[in-house]
Amino acid sequence: MLSALDRVYLRRACELAERGRGSTSPNPVVGAVLALGAVTLGEGFHRMRGEPHAEAEALRDAAERGSDVRGATLYVTLEPCDHQGLTPPCSQAILGAGIARVVVGTADPNAKATGGIARLRDGGVAVALADDAWSRRLIEDFSRSVGRKRPYLRLKLATSLDGYVAPRPGERHWLTGAEAREYVRELRAAHDAVLVGAGTVRIDNPQLSVRPPHARHKPYVRVVACEHAAVPLESAIFAPLEGYAPTVVLAPAGLRAEFAALEACADVIYVGADADTALDLERALDALRDREIASVLCEGGPTLAGRLVERGFVDRIDWLLAPALLHGPDAIAALGTNVAQTLHFDRVERLGPDVLISARRMEGNACSAD
Amino acid sequence: MLSALDRVYLRRACELAERGRGSTSPNPVVGAVLALGAVTLGEGFHRMRGEPHAEAEALRDAAERGSDVRGATLYVTLEPCDHQGLTPPCSQAILGAGIARVVVGTADPNAKATGGIARLRDGGVAVALADDAWSRRLIEDFSRSVGRKRPYLRLKLATSLDGYVAPRPGERHWLTGAEAREYVRELRAAHDAVLVGAGTVRIDNPQLSVRPPHARHKPYVRVVACEHAAVPLESAIFAPLEGYAPTVVLAPAGLRAEFAALEACADVIYVGADADTALDLERALDALRDREIASVLCEGGPTLAGRLVERGFVDRIDWLLAPALLHGPDAIAALGTNVAQTLHFDRVERLGPDVLISARRMEGNACSAD
Repeated sequence: MLSALDRVYLRRACELAERGRGSTSPNPVVGAVLALGAVTLGEGFHRMRGEPHAEAEALRDAAERGSDVRGATLYVTLEPCDHQGLTPPCSQAILGAGIARVVVGTADPNAKATGGIARLRDGGVAVALADDAWSRRLIEDFSRSVGRKRPYLRLKLATSLDGYVAPRPGERHWLTGAEAREYVRELRAAHDAVLVGAGTVRIDNPQLSVRPPHARHKPYVRVVACEHAAVPLESAIFAPLEGYAPTVVLAPAGLRAEFAALEACADVIYVGADADTALDLERALDALRDREIASVLCEGGPTLAGRLVERGFVDRIDWLLAPALLHGPDAIAALGTNVAQTLHFDRVERLGPDVLISARRMEGNACSAD
Repeated sequence: MLSALDRVYLRRACELAERGRGSTSPNPVVGAVLALGAVTLGEGFHRMRGEPHAEAEALRDAAERGSDVRGATLYVTLEPCDHQGLTPPCSQAILGAGIARVVVGTADPNAKATGGIARLRDGGVAVALADDAWSRRLIEDFSRSVGRKRPYLRLKLATSLDGYVAPRPGERHWLTGAEAREYVRELRAAHDAVLVGAGTVRIDNPQLSVRPPHARHKPYVRVVACEHAAVPLESAIFAPLEGYAPTVVLAPAGLRAEFAALEACADVIYVGADADTALDLERALDALRDREIASVLCEGGPTLAGRLVERGFVDRIDWLLAPALLHGPDAIAALGTNVAQTLHFDRVERLGPDVLISARRMEGNACSAD
């Protein structure tokens, strides 16, 4: 159904979509190309919520170039919308422009936005649904969180080859190389928020900044999940950074007195009932989503990471393996709880001296079969 | 110095060399191609100790094809030998055949066999030393064990992504898929012996066979290292297999009485002094080398693997990661001892649902830097 040339244009649309990564939330990233045969007429991508969709951007670009788009093919990574939101429906714009054919990377997983393909076909436009892997991957966060109360959650871990984050408790241990750290910075910027546990704040005291800061519909958020106790007021994560939202502290509602001092430097969200002295992780994640945080990168530590995996809240694990062995009587394992699970390795890649394995959870239990 | 065509022929010689894998020990695998411009005149590889070297095989093949090799180029993965061993010196055969140029993949690490390049140059042959990565990799086992009393030792581990071999002690847990198991069978066949600890024999009771059995100068050897106690006489590893040497048991010399019963079904090697009640691993490995076992694949378990890594006896680790998480209070870590080390990842590859990371040890200690 798709020609080799169709695939080239669709890949280009995917590349364009990636340029919006980190800025479009809660919208997905989308890219679009207008072409007639071997000639590109216009290109566009969705830059930020409230700004034009990728299709509208491609039409605008074509108009600026003086291209005649009648009879052209539109390549778009995601099904064009058919509803009036902050911007007009793209289906109408496509029909109005006289586009002859639309190649769609993947259908819209959002029930509210679907219907674009049907509308275009009703209007006489030939529509090819590519069901393209890259197009689907572009909106993984969006697809997984649509219709769910929790944000999309990606867990980043960095361990030795034998699975340890440090040789001893309380010890900071820098394992991965420059390429892996650069990858983690890109990951941070691609999500609405970065999340760490209280232990990581106490031991590593990270600033968790996104460099360079980038334009967003909503400022970037740093989050500390405090399961049982507060973290020091002078922690680096509370230092205000230009263009960032105030750091969020997720605290059990039963420990208001202990966390009151943090309200001076952080946005403290009290989770659960007044009797709760331990953080209810599900409600804590729901609370982030209530603040329009649609995607979260969790950077550990082992206690928080283990619990999130154990509870099934992690949509994707990005495990960075450093070329080292750390086993010893006091070595700290990556996941601090009982986490028997079956995964699927989606991506395996070298990052300088390290290896990245990106995995998602499969249904079922790794321990049930033998 | 090497043309693109030279590289093609050298790669072909490497492919040919691989065909001898598992049969040539204690000789290295070697491949050779004779060519004139774009025409291949002959090909060969070393099949087995005592049989002709790759260069002689290529010359014989060329003669059978009726090729005139005068003025041709010989591509050979390893420096041609210059000494009379079980076969005549290849340097003489090459000079005698009127070869004009020799492209050598890598120099011979064996002091006894070197000198071939110099002899050829003295005889008026143009010699190019390619210092080719594949050619070096072909003889890694040979290079690492030359002039050393221990065999080349490769450690194979198969764990969950978080580094565990089983969820509970004493439990057998099949983690990796068919492709990884096939890879392990190939690995076994590529070494002179397979080695496991007593715990693995007691818990997994493996047969450790090589399928299909292959022609070898010396029959394949299965080895059990018993660090403190004997294993049951009825273990599967002692079942006689056609074409295999009797299974070797490495036992502390101080426990002769306990191991005497095993002498009925195994080749028990008593290691160390009569006072030793624990196995001296270094002497145990030396004892294997004394039996002309030049390369060993260790398949664990955690206690033996940990000790071998800790002592620095492991030349290469092939770590298979299965798409699962197994952390829990009783989960068994891959390496049972204190093994802080820095590695280098040489090879990262997907094997079906699993990932293979092949690593070698770097000098220095992973824990010393922070």
